[in-house]
Amino acid sequence: MTSSPDTPVTNTQVTLLQIDNYGPWTTTPEPRREVDLQTLQSRLYADISQLVGNRQGYAFFSRFDNMVAVTNGLDRTAHARIQDSLANRYPVTASVSLAARSTPVEALGVASRRLQDAGSAQDSTRESVLRGEPLADADRTDDDVQIAHFDVNDATEKYTDQLNEFDTFIHIEQGYAELMRYLREAHDSLAFFVGGDNVIAVCSGMDATAYQDTVDHVREAVSVELKVGVGRARTAQSAGMTAKHELERCRADGSRVELGWQ
Amino acid sequence: MTSSPDTPVTNTQVTLLQIDNYGPWTTTPEPRREVDLQTLQSRLYADISQLVGNRQGYAFFSRFDNMVAVTNGLDRTAHARIQDSLANRYPVTASVSLAARSTPVEALGVASRRLQDAGSAQDSTRESVLRGEPLADADRTDDDVQIAHFDVNDATEKYTDQLNEFDTFIHIEQGYAELMRYLREAHDSLAFFVGGDNVIAVCSGMDATAYQDTVDHVREAVSVELKVGVGRARTAQSAGMTAKHELERCRADGSRVELGWQ
Amino acid sequence: MTSSPDTPVTNTQVTLLQIDNYGPWTTTPEPRREVDLQTLQSRLYADISQLVGNRQGYAFFSRFDNMVAVTNGLDRTAHARIQDSLANRYPVTASVSLAARSTPVEALGVASRRLQDAGSAQDSTRESVLRGEPLADADRTDDDVQIAHFDVNDATEKYTDQLNEFDTFIHIEQGYAELMRYLREAHDSLAFFVGGDNVIAVCSGMDATAYQDTVDHVREAVSVELKVGVGRARTAQSAGMTAKHELERCRADGSRVELGWQ
Amino acid sequence: MTSSPDTPVTNTQVTLLQIDNYGPWTTTPEPRREVDLQTLQSRLYADISQLVGNRQGYAFFSRFDNMVAVTNGLDRTAHARIQDSLANRYPVTASVSLAARSTPVEALGVASRRLQDAGSAQDSTRESVLRGEPLADADRTDDDVQIAHFDVNDATEKYTDQLNEFDTFIHIEQGYAELMRYLREAHDSLAFFVGGDNVIAVCSGMDATAYQDTVDHVREAVSVELKVGVGRARTAQSAGMTAKHELERCRADGSRVELGWQ
Repeated sequence: MTSSPDTPVTNTQVTLLQIDNYGPWTTTPEPRREVDLQTLQSRLYADISQLVGNRQGYAFFSRFDNMVAVTNGLDRTAHARIQDSLANRYPVTASVSLAARSTPVEALGVASRRLQDAGSAQDSTRESVLRGEPLADADRTDDDVQIAHFDVNDATEKYTDQLNEFDTFIHIEQGYAELMRYLREAHDSLAFFVGGDNVIAVCSGMDATAYQDTVDHVREAVSVELKVGVGRARTAQSAGMTAKHELERCRADGSRVELGWQ
Repeated sequence: MTSSPDTPVTNTQVTLLQIDNYGPWTTTPEPRREVDLQTLQSRLYADISQLVGNRQGYAFFSRFDNMVAVTNGLDRTAHARIQDSLANRYPVTASVSLAARSTPVEALGVASRRLQDAGSAQDSTRESVLRGEPLADADRTDDDVQIAHFDVNDATEKYTDQLNEFDTFIHIEQGYAELMRYLREAHDSLAFFVGGDNVIAVCSGMDATAYQDTVDHVREAVSVELKVGVGRARTAQSAGMTAKHELERCRADGSRVELGWQ
Repeated sequence: MTSSPDTPVTNTQVTLLQIDNYGPWTTTPEPRREVDLQTLQSRLYADISQLVGNRQGYAFFSRFDNMVAVTNGLDRTAHARIQDSLANRYPVTASVSLAARSTPVEALGVASRRLQDAGSAQDSTRESVLRGEPLADADRTDDDVQIAHFDVNDATEKYTDQLNEFDTFIHIEQGYAELMRYLREAHDSLAFFVGGDNVIAVCSGMDATAYQDTVDHVREAVSVELKVGVGRARTAQSAGMTAKHELERCRADGSRVELGWQ
Repeated sequence: MTSSPDTPVTNTQVTLLQIDNYGPWTTTPEPRREVDLQTLQSRLYADISQLVGNRQGYAFFSRFDNMVAVTNGLDRTAHARIQDSLANRYPVTASVSLAARSTPVEALGVASRRLQDAGSAQDSTRESVLRGEPLADADRTDDDVQIAHFDVNDATEKYTDQLNEFDTFIHIEQGYAELMRYLREAHDSLAFFVGGDNVIAVCSGMDATAYQDTVDHVREAVSVELKVGVGRARTAQSAGMTAKHELERCRADGSRVELGWQ
């Protein structure tokens, strides 16, 4: 439904990283100080971001104990190396599961099931498992990954510089909550808040109409005005950089949707 | 409305930290790599978390470029020191504004206005301003801060171990989006997602009925089952640690609301 | 010998932090990647530096698996908190021992023995021990800590901008190796390389003659020209900041030794 | 002199990273707190270590404001990426110069001169320069890099568990100061202290006799007993991992010198 002749099917490799048995760890033998948990989580994510990003991928913090990454181009060795690197630096380990499918949501679904089959997130005997197979090099193309970079129109002028910061935050969050739900349900795509008023989505083969539909939906549902730049490439980093440039084009031209390939 | 004879009014000192001119910085001279921005933001937050936490406060990442902290016990010198420490370690600076009021939302409102009066978040000439006055020592009491620690009931069993990780994430996010909005509107309180299935709220003088009302509201609105432990103390850290212990009591007893002072 | 009527005896509280069983950990079950060890060590030190520095102390990386800190003003609770914070964030734990004496070398000697009595650095059953007693508040004075900040005269002009970087490094290292040995043997003081061409020493009650003697000795022994600024205060941070300002005075005046109290 | 038929000439690519105008920055407008400088330096090094290490290189902290890395396999794009990544995350920038030669000391000499030709380390107008050319892929072989991993024999038993920690540190430092000087002068090799009782050296084509000579020299000069494992490979990381395994062989067999290729 969302693809047209100009919009090839994507082939997105998605990785789920799950801290092993993290919930119980945070309260054993008694609750650990929140400041240390927050420091641990945000640094662990920063490291994942670097380890994946240095290999041309994108990592999202999502729930922090469960992180999602777009990893086209990373093989099992690279995944094992990342896993190893965490175990060498943190008091916790992570299990890792990857899959590639034509839509991001399907890929993450397969990756999730593979990890669930290996044991519960709170199974103290499941540690550092690695599941799944990367895309074969022969199957990779220059259009495999589609990244959309959204932001909120005039967020600084309308919100940050005017409202109680919490009310600004509520606007952004309601916008994000609606966007994430809609993109997943209507377009099999995964959207992640990345700070400020920015959301980055890993998308299926969506075209301009599909993006306009999404922007319209969010405005109607929660009165948040979005704009979006979109890129397509062999890797997340390259697609994401195009998306950023397209978003700048929206800003310059006053447009709402800009695609890197049109 | 939400306080009873057993629930003294709170006196919450809230600090808003805003990265100066961050939006423009991220795209000048051209968009910076997302991996570097994510690393910068999450490490900056980890440092704020440590700098505030080592002084008995709680810091929340909220939007990352705008962070909110509960800072009872931190004077202007401590705030200046934190600000200075960031400037010495990062390519960006932060402006800081603090205020203490009987409800967290009011405190953050005052802090927000003070910062807005000093200039726009995207004003390139507003740099490292520090505004506001801390609570006088003489005015501080052992009940000034009320912290509530929520989590989602059976999140691992019902969501993480069963669903596509994104669908789990959607459930958690919808629960959080509703909780944050309701607590702000009905109870003048500020709720922050802190990872996993956890939300920490800085609350006004809420009693057991008010918490039960909140849990009920979220279940009815978005079908997410929460439980909550609550603590009260002179500082955020101490109140927060009590809240964690109370939440463990919920877990042990199967209860939904536990207060540390009853 | 090194104190005069103007130079009161110091009362230095020194803390030894030792990573527990670190050597074996680095090679079990097989050697861990050096990149991960280097990252772990330098971040662990950065955290110690912050945790001690936020409490007005100075921490030195020394051997990284054994770190030395000047901790006047930190009680046992603060030490336990630091220890706890490491355990919550790293895959290794640290044992901690502290002592206060009139000379730094004596204080570190007592701290070392207390830790050795608790078990070997490679005893897998010795974990997170905490030994020693801090200075009583009543015994603390405004002259307890003496910090000297040395640098190499014209290091950039004579070395960095002229030589193979390794030859520059050799000069700096030979200067440091001689300075650390001499200060310990002749003046019961502890000197630590802190990067660039800088060495910071925690000193006994040394006067101007003692510093001139030290600078002369290093020049004669290894032909490295040092200058030094010195401060005295209740805490390491305050004494160290004075020392930095005095070193700036050397730079401005062309002098070799400047004391903050003369 | 140091190579035999079994010891091919090395082809070592060395990179010098120099923080731009760092000395003046640390004291402008007035001296910055040492705790912040130490945190900045050690984290900057941790990041370099990761950025280089994720590309199969080895980075050493050396003087922290001047760092040396072995970078066989990293092209100019990778160097520019590392440089960029630092500029995006720190309040300082770094200039970078690389060169490949048959001995490490010669390579670093060329890299140093190229950087000096571009301006002084304290020239405020020299910023983020990048100089030099990497090894052409066609010229790379599986023996290009030789890494030696030294440690001090029985350091824990003889020093750490017996002496004042500072006296242990003096022993290690005197051993390192002598080793670094001797390896540079007699064998054109670069040795770096990496924590604990460990030194890693980037070596010219040294054979078993040359290593035995070095170990003997250090024992005679400063009474420090070393042992050493050595590896050869296409990249630093691979050579270094072999060296670690060879050092384990020394430990198991009681030998002093073990080479990975014999």
